Amino acid sequence: MAQKPGIPKGTRDFSPVEMVKRNYIFDTVRSVFQKYGYLPIETPAMENLSTLMGKYGEEGDKLLFKILNSGDYSSDYIQKLDMLGKLDEFAKNEEFEIYRKEGKKLPEVAKKLGIRVSQLLTPEISEKGLRYDLTVPFARFVVQHQNEITFPFKRYQIQPVWRADRPQKGRYREFFQCDVDVVGSNALLNEVELIQIVDEVYRMLNINVVLKLNNRKILSGIAEVLGAADKIIDITVAIDKLDKIGLEKVNEELAAKGLSQEAIDTLQPIINLSGTNDEKLEELKAVLANSEIGMKGIEELEKVFTYLKALNLDLDVELDLTLARGLNYYTGAIFEVKAKDMAIGSITGGGRYDDLTGIFGLKDVSGVGISFGADRIYDVMNQLDLFPKKDGVRTQALFINFGGEDELYALNVLKAVRAAGINSELYPDSAKMKKQMTYANKNEIPFVILIGEKERQEQVVTLKNMESGDQSAVSVEELIKIISNI
Amino acid sequence: MAQKPGIPKGTRDFSPVEMVKRNYIFDTVRSVFQKYGYLPIETPAMENLSTLMGKYGEEGDKLLFKILNSGDYSSDYIQKLDMLGKLDEFAKNEEFEIYRKEGKKLPEVAKKLGIRVSQLLTPEISEKGLRYDLTVPFARFVVQHQNEITFPFKRYQIQPVWRADRPQKGRYREFFQCDVDVVGSNALLNEVELIQIVDEVYRMLNINVVLKLNNRKILSGIAEVLGAADKIIDITVAIDKLDKIGLEKVNEELAAKGLSQEAIDTLQPIINLSGTNDEKLEELKAVLANSEIGMKGIEELEKVFTYLKALNLDLDVELDLTLARGLNYYTGAIFEVKAKDMAIGSITGGGRYDDLTGIFGLKDVSGVGISFGADRIYDVMNQLDLFPKKDGVRTQALFINFGGEDELYALNVLKAVRAAGINSELYPDSAKMKKQMTYANKNEIPFVILIGEKERQEQVVTLKNMESGDQSAVSVEELIKIISNI
Repeated sequence: MAQKPGIPKGTRDFSPVEMVKRNYIFDTVRSVFQKYGYLPIETPAMENLSTLMGKYGEEGDKLLFKILNSGDYSSDYIQKLDMLGKLDEFAKNEEFEIYRKEGKKLPEVAKKLGIRVSQLLTPEISEKGLRYDLTVPFARFVVQHQNEITFPFKRYQIQPVWRADRPQKGRYREFFQCDVDVVGSNALLNEVELIQIVDEVYRMLNINVVLKLNNRKILSGIAEVLGAADKIIDITVAIDKLDKIGLEKVNEELAAKGLSQEAIDTLQPIINLSGTNDEKLEELKAVLANSEIGMKGIEELEKVFTYLKALNLDLDVELDLTLARGLNYYTGAIFEVKAKDMAIGSITGGGRYDDLTGIFGLKDVSGVGISFGADRIYDVMNQLDLFPKKDGVRTQALFINFGGEDELYALNVLKAVRAAGINSELYPDSAKMKKQMTYANKNEIPFVILIGEKERQEQVVTLKNMESGDQSAVSVEELIKIISNI
Repeated sequence: MAQKPGIPKGTRDFSPVEMVKRNYIFDTVRSVFQKYGYLPIETPAMENLSTLMGKYGEEGDKLLFKILNSGDYSSDYIQKLDMLGKLDEFAKNEEFEIYRKEGKKLPEVAKKLGIRVSQLLTPEISEKGLRYDLTVPFARFVVQHQNEITFPFKRYQIQPVWRADRPQKGRYREFFQCDVDVVGSNALLNEVELIQIVDEVYRMLNINVVLKLNNRKILSGIAEVLGAADKIIDITVAIDKLDKIGLEKVNEELAAKGLSQEAIDTLQPIINLSGTNDEKLEELKAVLANSEIGMKGIEELEKVFTYLKALNLDLDVELDLTLARGLNYYTGAIFEVKAKDMAIGSITGGGRYDDLTGIFGLKDVSGVGISFGADRIYDVMNQLDLFPKKDGVRTQALFINFGGEDELYALNVLKAVRAAGINSELYPDSAKMKKQMTYANKNEIPFVILIGEKERQEQVVTLKNMESGDQSAVSVEELIKIISNI
């Protein structure tokens, strides 16, 4: 019996209509990345588990898709089951030996030891996993190919990643990331260039955005001044609620998190920070005057703003101290981009990191990068109807097939139309007119071309505009002109 | 200690230089596919194993990359081990029960039953696998989405596939396929269109090719006439050796394969088939006069040649009866494309199939398609030096960074150059001149632009052509013109 076809939960098929829109986004970011001197790399979907494990926290390790070793892995594995005492992790564990000697079954043993059986088994039967993000593979790439690379290394990477997250609306187990990074340069010009890229991408995509900017060093400075280095996340989370719950409640929350009254007092100008970016920076300078790292952060931000002013950038750039994404990871600038006309999370984000490649043995390589969220950008453009009507991809004209001599004649007109760069097709057989017109309608092909004996004798074609319904006899040259110019 | 980074065997990283070339190939085929009215789809990397298993033969099943179920799969699994008698496959097997009752361990049991342990275990811990080709996912897609699709459905798909093959030169465990297919139409015009696509793609890529054409119905007709339906592969393989071993040896081989002397006599005109395609077809007509299916195959080929003549196609199309790729699969036309100027296997291939979607429950959907081999096309273009020097992707100009006022000024000239569509960059800091020039050299950036105080005052830039070494002062307008026109 035939199987009922389906796909794994959390994954998606993309139809032609969806793909044309998705490619429009990818092609746009690609073209901008390249204009700024960034070039593509690609890494394999599968990485060694030794590359991936331990890079995303304990939760991340669980969310890796692991690939079964090929071959008859399980014979080995079963043999290992029989020799379990020899496994590294358990050889040391006397308790384990005792349970085993008592003849206890493996799940019982694992339960008594408080571990999951799969923690024990997976390393025996799987050595590879699917890429979880593009950052760790990029770090691995840079270290592995460091002798072939000229630094600063400017690369972009647009590839799918896989996470065994619980699927839900807007969260998938397979999705694309579009990362653009430069490594091997401390210059703040790189931050500025990424901001220019954000500006240009979203201008091309017609999305109104605000870019929020912060600096990890300023957050460290605030923590230093308050004497509360461990509370910086609590502080940013509390400040972020100002609009919703008001100053009084924010202060209550800060106190509840264990901040002293003195620290809360010191923090007041920061919680109430307002005005232009320059005004905010002036306020901050007063508060952070005694923090070296804080003042360094301010200096960095000031320099970025100086560049942006010199460039006369139109983009709405806003200093936002509550921005703390990936705090443990970033060391300088932190970016986030939000759409102004639709409530949705950030559509682009990133920042500077000072030791990405250290985990793979290459120290002191600073980098800065941002990632464009293709799925969210797609949702914004779809909802706000921002995708271009004419995309240069979809079929522009369908030639009706009347068979015989008409078909051969149409085939040659079609050849000329395609040579002019117009995506077009001839219905593959002389099916009923209605069927052919339905095909054009369903596929939203804007023009239909009819060539019968009359047209052939008069050296014209009948061109039907499917939207207006207008129909007229035109020469092939006119035909090409009309379709190209729409 | 830091890990030594590496990637799984049989997989590859692609550097910017490689990616630019690969994308050139992908972009070219994409643009041609679209010109002919084909649109992209994408399917998930992971498919349910129930979709993939049994579609590629026993060997193919072994070469699927299988993904471990997430969560604590192995507790369940271990419990199942304890209840093994209950597993469907084995519940029926009395012998198995007996072994289990005797207290035999699982590997022993498996050995006695002549099965591999992994055959038993894999279904318990893995339900998903990586896509092995694009054909089966496409069939699954068509059936799953049949109510959203307007037939004939013209789609292309460019995505990676994964096979746990033994890695060797030119064979990878992850590689891209570029498939273009139309399903839901029997019209031979589709075959013609695919031949036009081959012609246009290879003209754009500058590769001289010959397209070999055969028809499965003719092969069936030959087998019918000879009364040797089961020997058609042996026959095509033997005929294929004519050039190498000569007619006598071919006939010897045919006899050795069990062909009667009468059959071998009948086959002589076919073995010696030569001349133009029309002449070959005339010869074939004489031999196949009494085979209905054989004559149908000839009729189909004649119709295709009629179309090609009407289109005045330049492409070298050659009727080749030894072409039998995927014989069990194809039902009509069979295509193969070879590069003329380099000895390498086929770089494109495909054919017509009449029941692709039947396995998923949708009967009588005929289709025809071809697949472009990106890796081999890459090798041909690389070896014959066919990649364009100017690709519109790589960086065209590097602005030297002199810091301070010069930097801000350069940044604005750069902005104008980028606005003119030129991929360009400013070195991110005022490093030593030598370092900046080395960066330009290593990255093969053809132009370097220097703007110091003198240039700023005179409103010019110094443009250095890195290949010729020529250096001159030009205005920004001239600069853009020179770089754009190269």
